Parts: sequence; structure tokens; C-alpha cells
Amino acid sequence: MPATADPSLPVVGSRGDAPQQPSGMPVHKYLPFHEQIQVDLPDRTWPSQRITRAPRWCAVDLRDGNQALIDPMNPERKLRMFDLLVGMGYKEIEVGFPAASQTDFDFVRTLIEDDRIPEDVTIQVLTQSREHLIERTYEAIAGAKRAVVHLYNSTSVVQRDVVFRADENAVLDIAVQGALLCKKYEETVPETAITYEYSPESFTGTELEYALRVCNAVIEVFQPTPEDKVIINLPATVEMASPNVYADSIEWMHRHLDRRDCVVLSLHPHNDRGTGVAAAELGYMAGADRIEGCLFGNGERTGNVDLVTLGLNLFSQGIDPQIDFSDLDEVRRTVEHCNQMPVPERSPYGGDLVFTAFSGSHQDAIKKGLERMDADAAKAGVERDELVWRVPYLPIDPKDVGRSYEAVIRVNSQSGKGGMAYILRTEHGLDLPRRLQIEFSGVVQHITDSEGGEVSPAALWDCFTDEYLPSTDEARRWGRYGFRGVHQQSEGEGSDRITVQLLVDGEEHEVTGIGNGPLDGFVKALAERQIDVRILDYAEHALAEGDDSLAAAYIECEIGDRIFWGVGIDGSITRASLEAIISALNREHRARTAA
Amino acid sequence: MPATADPSLPVVGSRGDAPQQPSGMPVHKYLPFHEQIQVDLPDRTWPSQRITRAPRWCAVDLRDGNQALIDPMNPERKLRMFDLLVGMGYKEIEVGFPAASQTDFDFVRTLIEDDRIPEDVTIQVLTQSREHLIERTYEAIAGAKRAVVHLYNSTSVVQRDVVFRADENAVLDIAVQGALLCKKYEETVPETAITYEYSPESFTGTELEYALRVCNAVIEVFQPTPEDKVIINLPATVEMASPNVYADSIEWMHRHLDRRDCVVLSLHPHNDRGTGVAAAELGYMAGADRIEGCLFGNGERTGNVDLVTLGLNLFSQGIDPQIDFSDLDEVRRTVEHCNQMPVPERSPYGGDLVFTAFSGSHQDAIKKGLERMDADAAKAGVERDELVWRVPYLPIDPKDVGRSYEAVIRVNSQSGKGGMAYILRTEHGLDLPRRLQIEFSGVVQHITDSEGGEVSPAALWDCFTDEYLPSTDEARRWGRYGFRGVHQQSEGEGSDRITVQLLVDGEEHEVTGIGNGPLDGFVKALAERQIDVRILDYAEHALAEGDDSLAAAYIECEIGDRIFWGVGIDGSITRASLEAIISALNREHRARTAA
Repeated sequence: MPATADPSLPVVGSRGDAPQQPSGMPVHKYLPFHEQIQVDLPDRTWPSQRITRAPRWCAVDLRDGNQALIDPMNPERKLRMFDLLVGMGYKEIEVGFPAASQTDFDFVRTLIEDDRIPEDVTIQVLTQSREHLIERTYEAIAGAKRAVVHLYNSTSVVQRDVVFRADENAVLDIAVQGALLCKKYEETVPETAITYEYSPESFTGTELEYALRVCNAVIEVFQPTPEDKVIINLPATVEMASPNVYADSIEWMHRHLDRRDCVVLSLHPHNDRGTGVAAAELGYMAGADRIEGCLFGNGERTGNVDLVTLGLNLFSQGIDPQIDFSDLDEVRRTVEHCNQMPVPERSPYGGDLVFTAFSGSHQDAIKKGLERMDADAAKAGVERDELVWRVPYLPIDPKDVGRSYEAVIRVNSQSGKGGMAYILRTEHGLDLPRRLQIEFSGVVQHITDSEGGEVSPAALWDCFTDEYLPSTDEARRWGRYGFRGVHQQSEGEGSDRITVQLLVDGEEHEVTGIGNGPLDGFVKALAERQIDVRILDYAEHALAEGDDSLAAAYIECEIGDRIFWGVGIDGSITRASLEAIISALNREHRARTAA
Repeated sequence: MPATADPSLPVVGSRGDAPQQPSGMPVHKYLPFHEQIQVDLPDRTWPSQRITRAPRWCAVDLRDGNQALIDPMNPERKLRMFDLLVGMGYKEIEVGFPAASQTDFDFVRTLIEDDRIPEDVTIQVLTQSREHLIERTYEAIAGAKRAVVHLYNSTSVVQRDVVFRADENAVLDIAVQGALLCKKYEETVPETAITYEYSPESFTGTELEYALRVCNAVIEVFQPTPEDKVIINLPATVEMASPNVYADSIEWMHRHLDRRDCVVLSLHPHNDRGTGVAAAELGYMAGADRIEGCLFGNGERTGNVDLVTLGLNLFSQGIDPQIDFSDLDEVRRTVEHCNQMPVPERSPYGGDLVFTAFSGSHQDAIKKGLERMDADAAKAGVERDELVWRVPYLPIDPKDVGRSYEAVIRVNSQSGKGGMAYILRTEHGLDLPRRLQIEFSGVVQHITDSEGGEVSPAALWDCFTDEYLPSTDEARRWGRYGFRGVHQQSEGEGSDRITVQLLVDGEEHEVTGIGNGPLDGFVKALAERQIDVRILDYAEHALAEGDDSLAAAYIECEIGDRIFWGVGIDGSITRASLEAIISALNREHRARTAA
């Protein structure tokens, strides 16, 4: 770094005497962004702007999000996601690409025909600029009170050249023809109020002047007014440059778009460079009105911009996100169910570990911060929640998103199910399935609620063994069921005979069942004694390396109309499994008799 | 959004007519950043800067990263991480806080005494500003050729008030006294060349004028020269504002620090607002020389800034990161082993799904892009790698980080182990443990390498069953071992007697073993016949809901000195497990006889 106080000198690129060496990676294959696309805005104003209000949000989990799943949502999961988004307060929800997918089409029809769309929520549907797709899109939305029809075509240099093999005018014409067709088929849905959205897809790879020309041509077709605006959406379909460059390009468009007072300027950042959230924030500062994204940053490749982070970033600055994140764990659970993908541990605000302080000095500072707030509140005669939050290392109060801060500072102890799970994993080698974690956290919650205060790791283990594992302590033993010996004879598929010395209220009964493996055989044997168990799921693992170690079995059972997990730990995987069923049976009995 | 082409008007905050409603969340608890800390730099220059060279990197995985793990690294994992970082090309590596942790102390001693630090690598150690800690820090580094001694104390408004209950001068004095003590104890390690680093911890929560005063006071003690610089590190210990504000604060410090030509200005961003990468990039543009972070963004709470993303963002712009990311999957595997945490599927560049295109139109565009590059290369008579990369939806060539792009475009098919794993999961209900995924991807790789071309999902399944599961087709059947019936008698802990009709080369032998469960019993029975198997790990799961469904068992076996996974699928979990051992045995035999 050259010594300089002269701010006009270039400052980037000094190595500061590091002995780093060339990596040998093929850097010759890549052009810097500025050699691909010119973005020149030396008089930019966005770096001096401050965000003061929430943007208009549009959730695209059911489109961009869904298309990027290993296991795309079925109708049940789609409805769960839609209801979640509605419940959180999203008013614009992109629900699919109905002309391209029968599943999407059917889902849009279900929403409309079953009257699932609240009065103040608008569904949005995506379509390419082709007549049969546009026609079909209007068939999908017929009967809706309102809809956003989202027309797109790719405009980037590379796509024009490689995919469309078409020049600028031809690609512009795709957009204009699409807009004209939209207007034409709009007549087929006279009862639906249509708002138009147009995206020059791959905007970040498109020359700004050309992107402007295309957008203005589309605006000219749609003839928006200040009362009936058109949405112009500028996607970072692939994030190609640092977020300040995206902001420059947004401010440039903001300044140059025709009829700016008739346009809702919308952002649609992806996260290829890990700066999608920054791109959205700086782009919003640069003049945009609206942001499209997905909860927890789901979406193709590295994901769409994360609506949870954007919303709670506003919240942390005292700005109402106009979205309800007050039970973020429930949001996360639902998203994980719908997407069948975990939310990463370090995902801002929602990840398992983001309010956890492992370091002693951090814990100490958090503790002192909370104590000070309590003292200040007492002095002022108000609740702690009346005061401005100022606790080191915690950017927001975890309680505001439904998480306990008792947990946070006691770390490596109980806390959410994440905390409990890692205590059980690190101290006892148990790797609880996620739904069992949730069940057990309810058990612990019940105890902390009724007995108050804190659950130490030892108390947590006590609680776990009392709930799931047979006590060796006679005074604390409970449960109707147990078993002694097991005898298993297997001759192959479907012919496992299992004989178990079952204990019921201390009395031994020999029961026998033939089934497809010992679990099935045992369930059949129990049925003979009018004990009805249905196995929903199970998982097993070794507790430690080596064939003579213990095995843990976790079995989710439906007993009557309720669901109970059971846990068994034994040197034998067979016995561990049977113990797990016994554990669930005893828990069910206890729950029933307690009630 | 008000219609305006006047760039001086504020542009942020318009709602664009969204019907969004107040969320009811307690926004009154939070002050916007600018009401906490003043950062005023209207003549900022960083937004017009471009990055042209790699910064000086410092990897803090063994410190910030390690402290944030549920299961902190043991010495073996620490050494693996250290060797990985060295192998990738990092020249400055923070290896611990030796005065605060005996494990860290011992690790630093191991590095030095076992001579594990290459000539051009400098270790860095963290210490608080307390005499006994500083003294102990020097004991830790004695004998090293070079070291960075990293002194820190927290300077933020909140920490001064709540944690230290000390005024500005007292906290400044902590820093100065620490620096003086460092100089004093430096004399105890005359053979070590010391570089100093000072961090005003929680810099982002510190008034800029005050942070400057503290840093300049420390610089005054250390008396750096252009040849013997001091590192001034400005941590976003908690990310409190959008990244442009961090950049403003860095440019302000860059302009105002004393002896700027004797200072290496270093960044240390965290990711609480999801903008750590952006903060690092904009801060670097603002005048910094050096960046501290962790691979894949490990670190307390939401993590430290991600060195992989930062490095490959440079690479994607044609800038050599001076770090070798050419085998990123291997980097990821090692990091996952060391941290015992998964790298998320959408983590930029390294996640399982980041080069995967699920959408048909994306796949089509990628295919056309690759075809065009091939055609252009053929026309020019060069290899495709000689050309500038321009393929839609793929910001870099996956091959450059060691991943196959054959895979990318054929999606939902083979590809990396991620792709294979999801084919097996979605089409066959198998949930392979990660190490088995890795093993199997090697098997597939071997076939694609020798037979060329593409592996369809059907071919993949064929390959999997041929490798792991007994063929029902006589012509394709292979393997020495099999079994017919199983007879198991269990009376409790350690007394499972298992009798198996074992088939060896088609001949039936009855073998019996007593052990701690059927697996242990079977292993003991096999040992009687001089078949030595050691079980390292196993996992089982149901293939579908219901007690009569199939179970899959995966067992990792050590046979001789090699490791083989075996797989068994059966209605009975017992039989599935035994089949998995048989599968591993047969694979070992095949591998041995083939060699």
C-alpha cells in the first residue's frame, strides 16, 4: 500500500508485502466485469442514501425457489409455503410458471378455485414471451381478482449471441411482441385486474443502454399511469460484479427510465458472489422500490436474495419490515419442510448457531449487557423491552424472533433444539433425528416453563433419560412395558419370526410375530395383544467407532392417533430397536394416564 | 416512489403502493446505526475503485473459526486444517489464543517443535492486553522464526460502558499498556522476528475519532517503519450496518491513520447482516491491504467473512487470488472434517448445488454456451480452455475448481457426489452417508474415465447395484460370500448369539458368534473363519413410511488395511446389516483379486 492521504489516488491492489505466490489457476479465462459491461456513474448518489422504510416485497419461493429444489414441492408443500408467506405478511407472491408446468398450473387453479388468496394478496405468474405460453398463462389466472403477469426474456450479450442467435432489435422485438400478446389475452380475463411486470432477464449481463431501450419499449406498450403502474424488474440472474456496481446500474436505470412515476422499479438479486443481500440493499438505496427474493435465500445455484436477512436487517435498524418474523423458528421449520433442505447453521437471524456465543469473553459481555439493561429498566421502572437494545455480540434481541436468550449466554447447554441436539451429540454421542429434536425440545420447554430457570447439560440428560430411556433407579422407574429375551429366526424376505419375552406391568408374556424383519415381527406380535403401533420412521447409528460399541435407535411411532418417538440404546441393534418401540409405548401410556 | 430524475433527491423509502401492513414487531427497541456511530465521508472515493490484485490474506480458521465450533478441533483436526491452509497458499495463519487455552498453547508448540511451519509462512497468535497473557503468548511462540503477535482490546461504546466500565482514556490505556508489554516481552524471544497486529475489537461500534486515537497511540508505541510495518486490523466484530458504511469507515481510517506507509490496514468482517463478503470487498476498495477470514465463512454466530468466496470472486474477474482453489471439493471435505459442520448446499463456489441447473431453459442455455465455445475453439484451433469463459448461468467454469461440468448440464443425474446422492435419494430412497457418497463417486468416476461420456440415472443405479448389491442376474453375479438363514438369540447386554448359514464360494457353512448384538456376533463368527472385519461406522434408515417397508443399511468396514463400505437392503434390519457386511467383504475380495 503506497502511503497516501490523497483520496484521488487509486488505493486498491497493494499487497502489503505478503509473500503470496501465483496460484497457477487459469485466470486468463476470465474478463473483469468492466470489460464486459460498461457501468459509468461517477455522480452516483446512493452511497449517501439511508434506508428508512421497507420496500415492496415479492416472495418467489414458489417459483425460483421451487425450481431449484432437489425434490420440488408437491401440492401439500406448495400450499404450506403459500400459507406461510401470506401469514408472514407478504402481499405479492409469485406462485409459478403455469404455462411451463402442469403442476404449477394446477396449483394456481387450486389457489383460485379454493379461494385461498386473501383479499389483499396478489399472486404473480411468470411467462416467457411466446404466444401459446401467454395464452395458457391467462387460462391459469382466470377467476383471480388480481394478478401480476410477469413477462421475461433474456437480453444479455451472451444469451443474444449463443442462445437466441439474434441481434439487438430482434431480441427487443421478442419483448415488445410478448407485451402486445399480454395485452391481447388480457381480454380473456375481464374479471381479473392485471398488473404487468417485465424482466430483461440476465440484466446484469446486458449493456445498460440496450436494457433501457428494451424496458422503455415495453413501457410504451403497457402505457402505465401513476395509478396503474408497470413493474420493471432488473434481475441479477447471475451475480457478476460487486454490489456497488449493481447499485450504479440501478441508479442509472432509475434516472433514465421513461415515465418513472408510472414504474415500480424492482430488484431480483441472486447470490453467486455471496453479495446478494448487499446488492439488494445498495440497489434499493439507488432508487428501487421493490425486491424479489426467497426465504433463507433458497433459489437456483447459490440462491435468490434472502428475504429473512433483508427483513431483519431493517428491523435491526428500527425499521418495520412489514413482515412478521416473530416466530422465526416456526418459519424455518416450515421452510425446511417445504424445501426439504436444511437452513444452514450460520444463516443470519435464523440459523441454529447465530445467537450462540461459545467464547467465554463473549458470554461474559452478553451477560453484563443483559444485567445492565435489567438494572437500567429497574431504575426507570419499565420493562426491559421498553429500552433500546444494547447487548454486545447480539445484533438483535433473540426474543424478538421467538428465540430464548436465556439459552444464548449459557451456550453449549440447552437453548433451542439446536442447542439440546448438540449437547446430546457432543456429550452423549446421540444424533437425534430432527423431528425428535423438536419433540424433545417441547419436553424441556415444559419443564423450564413449570420449574423455571435454567437447564444444565446434566439436567438436560436427566430429562432425556427420564423421558425416553428406562431408568435403572427403581425409585424413578416408570412405564407399563419392558422386555427380557429376544429370539429371532430369519430365513429370508418376509419370514422373520421373532419371539420376545414381553413384560407388561411386571408380568412376563411370550409374544411371537412373523414379519418382514424384527421390527415388523415385533409390531405384529404386539398387535396380537391388542397393542397397536405403526412405525412411521426410524434411524439408527453407532455411538462410537468399533463393532462392540453401543447402537442408538430412534423410532417414530403412531399409537392411537398420536405420534411418539421412542429411543433405545443397546449393544445390539435389534434390541435397541425393540427398546425404542417399548420407549414410545411407555411414553404414550404415560401421556394418556396423565391427561 | 416519487417520479424524479433529479439525483440529489432522496430516493429510498417509497413503498410503491404496496398494501403491506405494520408487522407489530418491536422496532422501537432499535436505533439506526447512524444514530449510534457517525460515519461521514461525502467525498468517498471507493465506489469508483476497482480491485486489480489479491489482498494479503490471513486465515483465522484455527482461532475465530475453531472457537465457534460445536465440537472444537482436536490436535489431529487442527493439524489437518493448518496443512490445508498452507497447501492452498495462505502465508499468514492465526493459529490460536495460546495464553487462554492450553490446547491452543500445545498446538503452537507442536507446530514449532515439529518444524511444521514452512519457511514462507508466518503464524499469528492472539492475545488480550494483560501482562500474564502476553508473557504466556511469548512462551508459546519461542523458537518460531517469525510470528505475528495480535493484540486486541474492545473499544466500542457499549463495551466501554457495560463490560469495562471505563472511560475513553482508560480503554486507550489498556491498548497502550498492552503494546508496551508486548515490546517488553519481545526480548524473551530474540530469535523470533515479531510483527505486531493491533485490533480495536468491536471497531464498528466505536466512534471513528476515538478508534483513530487508539490506533495512533498504539502505532506510536510500536514505531513501525516502511520495512517493518504494523498491522492495524479493523474488525466488524458485529456487522452493524450496510457494507457501504463499513467501507466509508475504512476509507476514513485509511486517510487519517498516522504513518500510513508503515501500516498494513487489515479488515476482519463478520456476517451478521449477511453482507460480510461485500464489506470485505468494498473495504478493500476503500484502502485496506489485508483481509482476515475463514474458509467457507466459518466463525462465531453467522461466521467470519468467507475466504473461498472472496478468493474465487477475484478469480472470476481474471485476478489471481494467489490461493489454490483448483480442488475445491477436497478443500471442502477437509474443512467439513475439521469443523465437523457441513458446507451449505448453496455456499458460493463450493456448495453441492451451486453449479447445478435444474431449470430446462438454464440447462439449454448452458449446453448451447458450451457448444459454442467448443465450436469457437475448433475454429481457432485451440483448446476450449484458451478461450474466455462465457457460458450462461455459470459464473466460472466448474472444472477450474475441480468439478465436472459434464455433470452440471445433465443435472439430476450423476455429477459430483451431490448429484449422485440426490439421484439415489430421489429415485431409490437411499440416503447415503457422506463418506459412502465419496467412495461411490470414485467408482463412477472410474467408469466414466474408462468408458467416457455420460452416466444416466439408470446407468448410475446399475453401477450402484453392481458395486454394492447382489445381482439377481446369474450372469452378473459376483463375490465369494453370501448367506442364507440367520438365527439370533438375545438374552441381553453382551450375550447375543448369532448363527448364520454363510455361503463361501457357493458352499454353505454354519458359523456362530456371541457378541454385543448381531453385528458384533457376526463379526466374531467371521473371525472364527479367519475373515477379519472391523466395523468403523454404520447407518440405517427406512426406505419409506411403514413398518413393512425395506430398510437400508450402510456399514463402513476395515478389512485388512483398507476401508470399504457395504450396503444391504432388506425387509429386516438385521438381514440388511449382515448383507452390508457381506457386500463390503465381496468388494474387498474383488478389489484384491483385480489388483
